[in-house]
Amino acid sequence: MKIQIDRSDKTPLYKQIAGQIQAQITSGEIPEGFQFPSERQLADALGVNRTTVLNAYKELKADGLIASHVGSGTVAVRNQNAEPVILSHRKDPMWEHLFSDHMKNQDSFDINKYLEVANQRDVISFAAGIASFELPPVQAFAGIEKELLGSGNGLLVSPVAGFSSLRRVMSSYMQKRSCFCQPSEIMITSGAQQGIDLIARAFVNPGDIVLIEEPSFFPAIRSFRSMGAKLMAVPMEEDGMDVDILEQLLTRYRPKLIYTMPAYHNPCGVTMSIPKRVRLLELAGRYGIPVLEDDPYSELNYEGPPVTPLKSMDKSGYVVYLSTFSKTIYPGLRLGWICADKKLISRLSGIRQLMDLHSGCISQQIAERFIVSGELKKYLTLIRREYRERRDIMTDALSRYAPAGLTWNRPEGGYYLWCRLPEGLSSDILVTRAAERGVAILPGTPSYLTPYKGECYIRLNYTFPPRDRIAEGIRILCEVIEELASARPEYTLCPDSEINPIL
Amino acid sequence: MKIQIDRSDKTPLYKQIAGQIQAQITSGEIPEGFQFPSERQLADALGVNRTTVLNAYKELKADGLIASHVGSGTVAVRNQNAEPVILSHRKDPMWEHLFSDHMKNQDSFDINKYLEVANQRDVISFAAGIASFELPPVQAFAGIEKELLGSGNGLLVSPVAGFSSLRRVMSSYMQKRSCFCQPSEIMITSGAQQGIDLIARAFVNPGDIVLIEEPSFFPAIRSFRSMGAKLMAVPMEEDGMDVDILEQLLTRYRPKLIYTMPAYHNPCGVTMSIPKRVRLLELAGRYGIPVLEDDPYSELNYEGPPVTPLKSMDKSGYVVYLSTFSKTIYPGLRLGWICADKKLISRLSGIRQLMDLHSGCISQQIAERFIVSGELKKYLTLIRREYRERRDIMTDALSRYAPAGLTWNRPEGGYYLWCRLPEGLSSDILVTRAAERGVAILPGTPSYLTPYKGECYIRLNYTFPPRDRIAEGIRILCEVIEELASARPEYTLCPDSEINPIL
Repeated sequence: MKIQIDRSDKTPLYKQIAGQIQAQITSGEIPEGFQFPSERQLADALGVNRTTVLNAYKELKADGLIASHVGSGTVAVRNQNAEPVILSHRKDPMWEHLFSDHMKNQDSFDINKYLEVANQRDVISFAAGIASFELPPVQAFAGIEKELLGSGNGLLVSPVAGFSSLRRVMSSYMQKRSCFCQPSEIMITSGAQQGIDLIARAFVNPGDIVLIEEPSFFPAIRSFRSMGAKLMAVPMEEDGMDVDILEQLLTRYRPKLIYTMPAYHNPCGVTMSIPKRVRLLELAGRYGIPVLEDDPYSELNYEGPPVTPLKSMDKSGYVVYLSTFSKTIYPGLRLGWICADKKLISRLSGIRQLMDLHSGCISQQIAERFIVSGELKKYLTLIRREYRERRDIMTDALSRYAPAGLTWNRPEGGYYLWCRLPEGLSSDILVTRAAERGVAILPGTPSYLTPYKGECYIRLNYTFPPRDRIAEGIRILCEVIEELASARPEYTLCPDSEINPIL
Repeated sequence: MKIQIDRSDKTPLYKQIAGQIQAQITSGEIPEGFQFPSERQLADALGVNRTTVLNAYKELKADGLIASHVGSGTVAVRNQNAEPVILSHRKDPMWEHLFSDHMKNQDSFDINKYLEVANQRDVISFAAGIASFELPPVQAFAGIEKELLGSGNGLLVSPVAGFSSLRRVMSSYMQKRSCFCQPSEIMITSGAQQGIDLIARAFVNPGDIVLIEEPSFFPAIRSFRSMGAKLMAVPMEEDGMDVDILEQLLTRYRPKLIYTMPAYHNPCGVTMSIPKRVRLLELAGRYGIPVLEDDPYSELNYEGPPVTPLKSMDKSGYVVYLSTFSKTIYPGLRLGWICADKKLISRLSGIRQLMDLHSGCISQQIAERFIVSGELKKYLTLIRREYRERRDIMTDALSRYAPAGLTWNRPEGGYYLWCRLPEGLSSDILVTRAAERGVAILPGTPSYLTPYKGECYIRLNYTFPPRDRIAEGIRILCEVIEELASARPEYTLCPDSEINPIL
């Protein structure tokens, strides 16, 4: 028997003692019938109070692990059936052998390595896709505590698809955006990511084809891949996906789903034109293919009116609209919504119940208050102005510092600039070099299905970095690009070079 | 062109007009080149202001759907490529043809039909598995608003596995329960349901075998089935699962996972004995099978000390411990946690990121405050006393009113009584009859893998119904059972009757 007391541990001493004895009995290290020292003996040996040992023994007796008999003292009791644990089985569990294809289908791209850099002190981060830290919409909370403390109502549990009152609010919210839907056509989700996951799960069997814009939102690529989908790329053009290629793919293959981000696309900032929308919807209706419209950014418009959702023109009913409060209120709420045919919403609720039952009650109430009180509208006005200015600070800085060959767009809304690097430069190398100089960016590669295809792009977020550090970050980034470009070919990629046999 | 104005609708009139014209252009009802009435003509025809029509036309122009030319007035513009929408395609989407096996693997049991009854006014509900409505732990909120409004910190975003501070708090919480784990071995989940879903997703491929106690927590059965698992039943005995049968199944098949609820089992109230725990762990270690320990109730002990988790005796590292705040704080928080090997936690984070990124920031902060302040401990003392009393009210009422042949257990903890009906009576029929009399209960069938096997059981929850209505509900329920039993064989099941050929 071996017992080690750790007085710096907050666990009560008697628990420490009992726990260690229990472990040793269970493992067979203390054999059945083992004669324990008396309470006083053990207390003296360990330098603890006698009551401490008494309590430890009491607990072990209650668990049926030891027994005291007058005359024979305290002995270990063991289940007859239990064989001693064989030490060779105490190796680390072989998790990788046990994992499902879901786990294995995950690609190896680890976004965290980029975001970890971004989270370091003093790093200027253009990598994340999150809102400004400096403008928390704290008005959303004002009064909520009083309300909740007063009644406690609405804390306990919510329907799977969300509180009826919030679904009503969201349906009239969608109506203001020209989507004439009913509350029964709304499901509240725990963010847009859950919406993508839910739709992937509802429609995609391993091997099913999903059509996706290239480049696209990379967590969507990962979600579909994790479900075993075979992804096929529809190239992006200046005014949205190439609908001619879309039609070819629809004719040649039998895709299960089309995934699109028609407004202020992440990462490339493009908005789909009306003619392309008409064509996409006509094709989806003709072939009977659901269209997942991911629309997190359409209300963050900096020029012209907000982009109207594709869903507003949906005659066939195949458009599944998805949006989130993560970009307009804040991501920590974990709240988004789906707007779709009510028959689909009802079937999706069946799966949703198995995923997380429903979205958090407090988040739902905060979002509802925030909309109904008019605070969201005010807050949108505030961040639209702020983000427009940050975008302009970034494009101005690029105009000032950009080396030859670096090009970028000027998105009319959303969160990101999409930059093309001077020819031959690799974004993966640039990411590392920029991080060393304290600037975090996202490489283009994960947004592409085709390996290396995104190497000449980087995505820059302008909403998160403090406005007074944007120009500085761009200056440093441009210096790094310049250095790498002039050091060519050492640090560059030659995608067009000959392929040599591997010997 | 057809336009209908709805003045009771909150949508601005110009939006209503623009929306309807847009829809008609898109669908082809308004053909390309269609000559629109002048603003004044349309305003007169609709009985609206001229500015209203002006604004509608402005919007349509911005969308590229109409154009005005001096001399030719306002005309509809249409994309050349778009073919008119063919009306036969406007049928309802064929969702059922499109759904994945995930969706199809869902069994047809619809818990909602039982819970809907339970939600009706004046119904005494023994059906739900939720906490008392009358004892909201509102102290959890006191002060949180001030904190959040003050800083706004911790609102924005959380790490995938949860805030570090909460993971630290949960690891010391687990240590107090004899599980000596590190914060890196904790993942915060959006409730225990998400934990089950996450584990199922990480380990189960279609066709994989999962061993599960019979009866068991029915949403777990549904989760594993939705992933395509082949479930095999390990029968429950008075002191936990039959470990001899477990061993046979482990030897004969190659299961991927063992699912167990070792403390105050839902639905049958049983706690697994120490010898069975030792044997289960030894077998899991020897065969290298992960054990999902679902432990929502162990701290709701009404007699004796709280049951120590299986995880505390886990030498092999294969135990994946799962618990939730839904039963101790409240379900609307959507907060639970997994405690497992840190290598597994890290791999699970990869999937979790695709599911919902992370659990809600406010819920995490509320739970952390509730534990650290000592409020959870106080609240547990309060609800333990309250629920023990409610359990006793229920068992006393059963002793008073029960007809011959009705038997029940007296669980030492948890939420449920598990009752066996008089022989030949069907719980599915009883559920309907009891609902008609204003009492909601849960039938035994969904908790069993084998069809009809649960027909002779019902589950009664005593935590949710108000204490002064429990005895009344039991009285009514017993009357209904008595009536059905005396009306036999009309309303009863004859599971042992001969099977006749279907002609």
